[in-house]
This record gives sequence, structure tokens and C-alpha cells, in this order.
Amino acid sequence: MIALVLERQGELALREIDLPTTVGPDDVKIAIDTVGVCGSDVHYYTHGHIGAFVVREPMVLGHEAAGTVLAIGERVRGLKPGDRVCMEPGVPNMSSRASKLGIYNVDPDVRFWATPPVHGILTPEVVHPAAFTYKLPDTVSFAEGAMVEPFAVGMQAATRARIVPGDVAVVIGCGPIGIMTALAALAGGCSQVLISDLSAPKLEIAGRYPGITPVNISTASLKDAVDAATDGWGADVIFEASGSPRAYTGIFDLMRPGGVLVLVGLPVEPVAFDVPASIVKEARIETVFRYANNFDRAVNLIASGKVDLKPLITETFDFTDSIAAFERAAKGLPADVKLQIRMPGRN
Amino acid sequence: MIALVLERQGELALREIDLPTTVGPDDVKIAIDTVGVCGSDVHYYTHGHIGAFVVREPMVLGHEAAGTVLAIGERVRGLKPGDRVCMEPGVPNMSSRASKLGIYNVDPDVRFWATPPVHGILTPEVVHPAAFTYKLPDTVSFAEGAMVEPFAVGMQAATRARIVPGDVAVVIGCGPIGIMTALAALAGGCSQVLISDLSAPKLEIAGRYPGITPVNISTASLKDAVDAATDGWGADVIFEASGSPRAYTGIFDLMRPGGVLVLVGLPVEPVAFDVPASIVKEARIETVFRYANNFDRAVNLIASGKVDLKPLITETFDFTDSIAAFERAAKGLPADVKLQIRMPGRN
Amino acid sequence: MIALVLERQGELALREIDLPTTVGPDDVKIAIDTVGVCGSDVHYYTHGHIGAFVVREPMVLGHEAAGTVLAIGERVRGLKPGDRVCMEPGVPNMSSRASKLGIYNVDPDVRFWATPPVHGILTPEVVHPAAFTYKLPDTVSFAEGAMVEPFAVGMQAATRARIVPGDVAVVIGCGPIGIMTALAALAGGCSQVLISDLSAPKLEIAGRYPGITPVNISTASLKDAVDAATDGWGADVIFEASGSPRAYTGIFDLMRPGGVLVLVGLPVEPVAFDVPASIVKEARIETVFRYANNFDRAVNLIASGKVDLKPLITETFDFTDSIAAFERAAKGLPADVKLQIRMPGRN
Amino acid sequence: MIALVLERQGELALREIDLPTTVGPDDVKIAIDTVGVCGSDVHYYTHGHIGAFVVREPMVLGHEAAGTVLAIGERVRGLKPGDRVCMEPGVPNMSSRASKLGIYNVDPDVRFWATPPVHGILTPEVVHPAAFTYKLPDTVSFAEGAMVEPFAVGMQAATRARIVPGDVAVVIGCGPIGIMTALAALAGGCSQVLISDLSAPKLEIAGRYPGITPVNISTASLKDAVDAATDGWGADVIFEASGSPRAYTGIFDLMRPGGVLVLVGLPVEPVAFDVPASIVKEARIETVFRYANNFDRAVNLIASGKVDLKPLITETFDFTDSIAAFERAAKGLPADVKLQIRMPGRN
Repeated sequence: MIALVLERQGELALREIDLPTTVGPDDVKIAIDTVGVCGSDVHYYTHGHIGAFVVREPMVLGHEAAGTVLAIGERVRGLKPGDRVCMEPGVPNMSSRASKLGIYNVDPDVRFWATPPVHGILTPEVVHPAAFTYKLPDTVSFAEGAMVEPFAVGMQAATRARIVPGDVAVVIGCGPIGIMTALAALAGGCSQVLISDLSAPKLEIAGRYPGITPVNISTASLKDAVDAATDGWGADVIFEASGSPRAYTGIFDLMRPGGVLVLVGLPVEPVAFDVPASIVKEARIETVFRYANNFDRAVNLIASGKVDLKPLITETFDFTDSIAAFERAAKGLPADVKLQIRMPGRN
Repeated sequence: MIALVLERQGELALREIDLPTTVGPDDVKIAIDTVGVCGSDVHYYTHGHIGAFVVREPMVLGHEAAGTVLAIGERVRGLKPGDRVCMEPGVPNMSSRASKLGIYNVDPDVRFWATPPVHGILTPEVVHPAAFTYKLPDTVSFAEGAMVEPFAVGMQAATRARIVPGDVAVVIGCGPIGIMTALAALAGGCSQVLISDLSAPKLEIAGRYPGITPVNISTASLKDAVDAATDGWGADVIFEASGSPRAYTGIFDLMRPGGVLVLVGLPVEPVAFDVPASIVKEARIETVFRYANNFDRAVNLIASGKVDLKPLITETFDFTDSIAAFERAAKGLPADVKLQIRMPGRN
Repeated sequence: MIALVLERQGELALREIDLPTTVGPDDVKIAIDTVGVCGSDVHYYTHGHIGAFVVREPMVLGHEAAGTVLAIGERVRGLKPGDRVCMEPGVPNMSSRASKLGIYNVDPDVRFWATPPVHGILTPEVVHPAAFTYKLPDTVSFAEGAMVEPFAVGMQAATRARIVPGDVAVVIGCGPIGIMTALAALAGGCSQVLISDLSAPKLEIAGRYPGITPVNISTASLKDAVDAATDGWGADVIFEASGSPRAYTGIFDLMRPGGVLVLVGLPVEPVAFDVPASIVKEARIETVFRYANNFDRAVNLIASGKVDLKPLITETFDFTDSIAAFERAAKGLPADVKLQIRMPGRN
Repeated sequence: MIALVLERQGELALREIDLPTTVGPDDVKIAIDTVGVCGSDVHYYTHGHIGAFVVREPMVLGHEAAGTVLAIGERVRGLKPGDRVCMEPGVPNMSSRASKLGIYNVDPDVRFWATPPVHGILTPEVVHPAAFTYKLPDTVSFAEGAMVEPFAVGMQAATRARIVPGDVAVVIGCGPIGIMTALAALAGGCSQVLISDLSAPKLEIAGRYPGITPVNISTASLKDAVDAATDGWGADVIFEASGSPRAYTGIFDLMRPGGVLVLVGLPVEPVAFDVPASIVKEARIETVFRYANNFDRAVNLIASGKVDLKPLITETFDFTDSIAAFERAAKGLPADVKLQIRMPGRN
């Protein structure tokens, strides 16, 4: 099968490669339609590794995908050929201790698309467990379906925050995940979200959404903006989505007594954490590792129109131009929120 | 001071009555602008009692109110004359065991406007503790401010449900509180709300809101509608807002495994409760008594535009026509969601 | 294999029967040592059905068991032959929607031992998924291991109550599950448990445990006892473990404002539920369906000595006397908390 | 009134000082019996300040106290002269936004005994709000009553952990608060607590309690001990009670996937926090600021015998020897868990 293969750091090829095609009894076979380009895909391309995950063998990229069911295994119920679907890219051992608890995302045995040594899905057809394949309503396009995966990270952040209806939130960092988190927080019950960044083009995109107030911290004080929005009381929820160690300086000054900080961004180095500041607020701090049990909820919110991800799709490339898509993504243009790749011949 | 006084069951008078005017150190004095007519006010008028609360002395009616601060007590901070405000009508003993726990609404010593023997606020000026007086942003009208109280009941229901972003909810009963609950559930994270009733005019009003699907159970099956909306899985949250004992028949058939039922409506008689049906679903059941700690959140959601209560205000009467307003309300016309009364001379 | 077979209502036989013996890759084979006799086993014997579950074919009884691992499947980790274990009798579809959420107990496809048409384990050897087989520390006997299953119901009740350390609880009903619930509530954080019943012998057994106060409601008022224990404030948690519809009369009078009622007992008929009484307390109501994710926690508590179930084992029968054990159990003697059956030749 | 006065850093005097004696309508007057010496009292003595709280005027020390009600204000219910009581030393503004939410401990306006400029209670009589005065059952001695305050910190930690019955916990740091936390965690539902420290005498004291396993990290690996206790899965709850920045190194390696870290100790400097390690476990992190709503629960647990604090009282000094008590406390002897001071002439 033809696929976009990362041969090694910095080298991509669109070429034939052997991939599994057997449809097990609990699996479905899917014709891929649209695949989003994620920062982690790009990072493997540009750096050859993410933390301890090192690309040692050629690996197919891509893990944000939507498509059409072609065939189903004998035990599959609830899905049939022709169904339009999106897919959750991590497959745990469903009998593991973590999975039994409902937190399958932290099962140490998860196999995740395009994470060495597991292949991704930038290829015309893939086989996947039905349990991690979710039907798209007719009103949700493939392009939107391929946005469910990154949006699910925002959903996980909003879910773990345990938002109380009407909460005011802050999102630090206006990259794709920051925007997804802001949208999920609004859809998930917040009345207002302040989002901060140093990049004016990113903030401009986020600020087009009603309910999101951009704060450019190169010229304004986030603390002042939060105080103005909350009468000095502080935000109920703060999402750290920048991954910048500097974000941790004074972060609890933004929070109301008894508030919550949700850690989404991944700083490379340990950060300087002000324990007394967290304790004086009696803060709760939650962390987010991918997602669990929310692809269906994410699809619901997109289908209902409460969340509109279409404006975040900056440009769509043909599968034959996949390498160009990755080269563009590697530039990290601030106004490029999401690039997508589309299989040819899909309608 | 002139006030709308319920002299006894069935007899209203707009007349002078002695009311407290002393502004204590923690109080504010407020010029009332708009007052909503609530079903409980009407019930005291038509029946002379609600449960154990019996009108034995003349009592001023009204507890859904917004107005303008006229004067503040010496210890008040955060409010000043001229501030536009709405008021939470129940004042607990703040040092009680329940209040210390943050559940001041269930403090047995709560004094609640227009609940015998406590006067309501259908009168030009009232004195109220600053702690239960909430500032309205300029973008929120007095008419909307006077809707905060009934909306707060819906907020309490949505809060106690602990909605997970993207949940699908059912609201049984399309009266004012049912609609408020549906709007709070949507604003609070639900992707979709099905609302059921026997009254077509009520359902028509609710169905104008995006995200709300009306189900007329005189002609359609609510169970079928829920199954269609959830692929047979069941709703995540069911709000019982009808107060009808019949609503309890088969109610757990509407629920997904592990779902929640929120009791908002007040049936007069004990209902027939199917314990095994609740247990097989391992349901959680929450109850709602008025509200606590959500007037500010309610105001936030109205101010942000996420919740639009204006379409629910059916007609506004001048204070001098208060009795006519109550006579109209007593008719219980299905398309009358909320009648309001406005003080003359306010701008 | 020889087994205790319920041929039909009222007829037991200790005879050969064909049972599965193939050890799948994720399974273990276990030599049964001890099996507890449960009320549901007895009910199938005496009535031939429980609700919609009807014994239509001969069925092996027994689902509370401990034993020794004989063999393991090729993918099993964490267990090895010779390990002493207890077993969780319900096996869900681990890829189902409920299982993914961590609530595998409410998966509609659960297959549960000794629930028609699934055989139980009153037989020398059984095959079971490793994921539902739990190691026993050396300090926990087989007899205690076979008590983990009924104790797990109490654990589920205590877990769903979300006990806050120092809570005062009431358990209504002093049968085996009531006592298990009381012990789990104490071990799970309660400072004190009042347990009520009409049977003096049952209460006498429960009252031997420190922290449990028996209340004989044939001669004393439970409400008075709760008021005395809580200075009139009410209990934080009430566990309904009697299954008696009469228990619901006035049940919310026992509860503090903002308390929780946990439904464990299964009344056959709908009960008369006082919605206004629940709402005035703004009660939370939780329900318990078997258990999920707590066999390991139950074993921990037994191993630590915090929970001592040994006094509840009234008598132990040899497997060859199984029928006598069931005849004794069918008498329902009030002082018989738990009867157990032991395989011959185990040491 | 005579009192133990901290004149300035390093200088104590037992002398007459003017203290409020007016009993307001919601107050009680209490004859102090026993007062515990807390690390913070000693720190003010030895350093003259704690963080931003600086001793600028002579200040009475002491905030862990029990005594007898002498007189009550006119609105007080539930307490009467002669009642034996303990007192919660922080008094918030009960109408503040934090107090209304039930988190009065984080009200910025809390006035806390022996925290500048508020006097403590090492003096024969004090006046205190009845709402923060808790009755002691006859079975709880004054000495135990004066232990409620430090135990309440452990209770707050155990409460915020949201322990699930049977959890395994780790407490890092075996000082008084570490031991209190371990005892609260056990009473609050844990099956087992591992406690770590470098001090053998401290660990020896903690290890006398059943359920507490001491781990001397000068000679053993805490990670190995946790792995042994949990079969390599990790602890459900980790309490950081040492305040040492070094405790944060590898702290998430001790935690199971989806576990919780509770921050009790106050490191002076920012700590190096490994965000990716917390995220991979999808950890929840809670912080503890004093306590709220748990003095009554703490008293319940002591009265029930589930928690025995008596072995932690190392020595009791007469009030006339208060200065000697503080000099002894300032030495910080490892086997001195709690020193107490007793008013003369109390029986």
C-alpha cells in the first residue's frame, strides 16, 4: 500500500510499504478520506524523536483521520460498510488495570498511531478496532471529522477541569491545542475564556470566536485582564497550554481561591513551581494525557453546531502533495492552525 | 411604602404597608426596577399556602427582582450607589452549619422573600444584604436581571448534574423552569437537549432555541426520541421538571448506564419509584432546592450572550397594573412563559 | 466434572456435568477451594428465577469463590500457578461502551456466574479471565477470599457514597449485605455506623464490631438514635440495604441537609418516594449494582486487618454436603450470616 | 489577663496584657484548659515572622486549644456553660465570596489566632464565635481536644485526596503533620500508609500504629517499598508533608496511573516540578490550606476510637512553665511530636 513514510529524521517518502490488512473479528477496515497534520507528526519529521520515542525504522505518519467503513469484522455491531467515521488513534489493552478503571489513555501498553514503532494512517486504507471508531453524522464533514482528534485533547482538558456552568477560564498559549481547549471550555460550560499569547496572528484567529477574549501579553498584563473580567476575584479555571516554563511564574495570581489549574502543555524541562502560592489558593491541579471517552462527545458538540472547527482548517493538500504539506507545516507559520491532507478520488 | 399586598387567599391590594427601611452595616438599599411574576407568588394568591407555608398575615409578593443601588451600609465593599443589580431572595444564617459547608440554600433558617411570614419586594425600595446582591453588567437589562432568579434554578440543576462536555440531556416538562433548565444545561456543556411536554405552545417556544429538540408526548414517544438521538445508548442526564408523578414511569429507560437523574419538579404526592430499574443502570439521582452560589455565574452567562432569556418575557405590566398581571398569570396561559412588572418612572 | 447442579426449582444434584476446560490466552485455570453460599444462589434454588432471569436448563450454582491457580494462558502476566486467588464473577465485554467508561458492571453484556444461562463454580476447577482474578496475600485465608465477593458489594456502596472522613452513616437492614456495607463504610472513612433491623440475633452479630451501633426498630426509633448520635443534625450517609419498601417512609428525616442516600437493597415493587422530602434536603441518591474495580481494594482492607470478615462465617460444609448447606441456607436462620462450602482435599 | 506573650523575636514573657473580654451575641467565653505548641508558634518565637506575617507588636501565642464554656452570647444555640469544647482558630468573614462557597479557609480576610496581628490563646480565658467552637464528648479528653487542630490539617489532606476505600497511600515526611496525615488517611479509608523520613526516632513513633509502614529513606528506596506494597502499580495517593524540595524528585514514579498527589508541606523556595511526569500519569494534584468543615469530623473519629492521638503527646507543661515548653520545642528533638501546656487548677 502507498503511504507517507518517514524514512528517518528529515526524510519523507510517498511509497509502497507493507501494512496489516487483516480485519480481525472486532475490527473495521476504513478508507481514509482526510488526515490532519499534527505538531507531533512534524516533530518526528524534523527531530526524529519525541522524548523517549525514537524513529528507528521507517514509519508511516498521521493520526488525525476520518474516512468511510469498507468492511467489518464478524463481531462488530453498530458500524457497517458505508458509515462515515473518525478514529481514536490510541488502542490500549482493554483488560489492563487502567482500562478497567476507565482511564485507558494511561494504560502503559497503549499503541498509538505514528508513535514509534506503530505506523500512522497516511495511507488509503487502515484496519482499526471498531471500539475506537466513531460514526459521523451526515452534518459533520470528513474535514471536521479529522479535527476530532485534536479537539479531543481540548475536551479532555475541559472535562478534567470539572467546569461549573458560568465559570470564567484562562487559556495560556494560543497554538492549535490552546484554541481547541478554549473552544471546549466554552462549549463545556464556561461563560468566557481569556486566551493569551505573544503572537498577534494566532490571537486574531482565536478572537474571532464569540466568548474568547485574546490577550497579547507582549503588550498587556494577563493578570490585569483577568482582574478586569472577574472584578479582582480571579479565574475559576486556568489552562496551561503553552508548554512554556515562563507561564508558571505568577500563574496562581490569576486564580480565584479554590480554583483549578489544568496542565495541557508539555515543558521540556522541570518548571519552577510555587507551592506556597498554590496552597494559599488551595488550588486543584489537573493534568491531561491525550483523551479517553470523549470522541463521541466531541462529535456531538460539532454536530450540534456548538463548536465550529472549520475556520481552523487553514489549507488542504492532496495526498500526492503530502510532503509539501509537511514542509509547510515545518515552517510553523503563526496563522497556520491546521493543515489537512485529502486522499484523491474521495467525494 | 406602597406595595402589592396579598391580604389573604384570592385578595390582592396595592396599598401602603410598613416595611423595614434601616440599612444595616452589611446591607444595601435598592430601588426596584423590574419584578418577575413567579408561579409560587401566583400559588399563594390562588391557594393561600404552599405546603406548610400558609399566608396568615398580609404579605408583600414578589421575589424575582432587579434594580439600582440607592445606599450602602458602612461595611459594604464592591457595591456603590448607582450600581445596577439583581438580588438572591433567600438569606440564610451565614454562620449555620449548612452555610459553613457552602450549601446555604438548605439552611433551615433561610428567610426567603414572599414566603410567609417574610415579605416580598413588589414595592419601590427594599433593603437587602450586600452579600446576596449581584452587579449587572451594562449589557444586561433590568428585565434580564429579574430573570436571573428563575434561571438560577436551572443553573442549580445543571450544576448538580455535573454535566460532562458533550452530554445529551432530556428535560421532562416544558414550563418556565423546564425551559430554564434546558438553557442552563446547554450553556453548561450539553450538546443537545430534548424537552418533552403535552403542550404544543410551550414546546414551540422552547424549540426556537438552537440545541433544544421539543418532543410532544401526546403524539410521540420520548423513549423513541432519546434512542434516536443517542443510538439506543440513552441520555446522559435526565431532568425531571414537570412535577408529574407519571413522569417517573419508565424514566430510567431513558437513561444510559451510569447516567444521572436530576429532580427539579415537586410532585405533591409520593411517586412510585422503581428502585431495581435505577439500580440496574447504577443511576445517580440529584435533587435541586432553589440555588446557591450561582447568581454570579448566571449573570456571566447572560452577559456573554450564551444564554438569551429575553424571548421568554411574554409581557410587561406597569406596577400600577400589578393586580392585572397576577390575574393574567393565574390563568396559566400556555404561551405565557414569564410576565414582569415594572416600577413607573424608571428609565 | 462433578458440580452442584440446580436441575430445576427446588431440585439440586451433585453430579457430573460438561463444563468448559479450555484455557484461553488471557485465562487462568483455578482449583476451587472455598465457595460462599449467597442469597441469590438460594433464591434460584427455592424460586427458580430472580426477576427476568429464569433457570430453564440445569445450572451449576455458586459465585463467591477462592482457590489456587493451576495453569495460565499464554498472554497472562501477574499470575502464576500456585497463586492463591479470589475471583470476580461477572465478565463484561471489555470493549463495550460501559467498560470503556470504567463502569463494566453495567455493561448489558456481562456474563455472571450462576445467573442463567451462565454456570457457577461449585465444582473443583474453573476457567476464568486473568483480568478478573485477584491474588490473595498469604495473610488472607481462602475462607476470607471467598468473602471478598459479598464484601465488594459493601465496598461499592461505600465508594459510591463518596464518604468524607469522619462521616456518620446509617445502614438500614442487618442482613449479610447490610453488615458488609457497614464494615465497608467504617473502613472507608466513617466514624460511626448505626445499623437497624427487626432481628435481634442479626443486630447482636453486627454490634460486636467496634464502631457499629445496632438499633432494633421493633423497640426503638431510628430517627431518635440518629438525632442522638448527630446532635439533631442528621446522618451524612444512609445506606438502604433492607430492600423493604417500608424503609422509604421518612428516610430523609434521618439525613442531614446535603446528605446522601445509597440504594443497595432491591424492593420487588415500586416504592413510595417522597420527592419534596428529598429536595428540601437537596439529597444526593446513589445506586449500587454489584461492583467494579474494587476486589483489589477489598483484599487490601482484609489483608491490612482493618476489616475482619471471619466472624461472619457461621459454618463451613464439605463439598460433598453441598445440598445440606443449601437446605440450611434456605431456612434463613437469622444468626446464619454466611455459610461456606469447601472442596475436599484442599489444605 | 495573664498570657504568654511573644514580645519580639526570641523573647517570651508570661505577663498581664489587655485582651478582648466582651462576649458578642454569637460568641462564647471559654476557660482554656490545654494548649498545644505548634511549629508555627515556635517559628514566630525563633524567627519573628513566617513569610509576610511579621511580629511587629507583642503577640499572645497559641492556637491549638480545648477548654470549657463559661458564658454564651444571646443568640448562641447548641452550646451552654460547662460544655467541654475545642476551637477552630481561624475566623473568616462569613459573608465573603469564599465563605459562601464553603471554602472559608481561603477567605482572604480570615483572622487566625497567633498570626500577626491577631493574638493567640495562651491565656486563661478567651472569647470566640460559637460557630467555630466544637463540643467534645465525655470520652475525649482536653489533651485530645487540643490535638484536634493539628489533626484537622491531616483531615483536610485526607478529604481533599478523595480517598477511595482501600487506597494505598504514601506520606512523605514524618513530622507531626505527616503523622496526622497518615492517621487521617487510614481513618479516612486507606488500607495502608507508607511514611518516609530520614529520622529513625520519628519513624519509630509512626510505625507503632497498625497500618503505617515506616520507610527510612536514608537506607531504603521509597520507590522500592511502594512497588513492593502495590505489585509495581504505584500508590493511589501521595501526601507531600515534608516541605522539602527534594521530595519532588521522582515523586510521580511513586504514583499509579490516574493517582493523586496532595501538597501539605510548604517548601520555602519554588520546587522543580516535572510536568511531563505528572501528565503521563494524568495525575491530579490537590493542595491543603489549613482546614474547613472538619473539626466536627475530627472529633467524631477521635471519639469513636478510630484515631488515637494520645501517644503523640510527648510531654505536658504547666502554664507557669510555658516558656520552658517553648524552649524545649525550639530544640526540635526528633522524638518530641507534641508538647502541650495546661492551665493550672483545671481538673
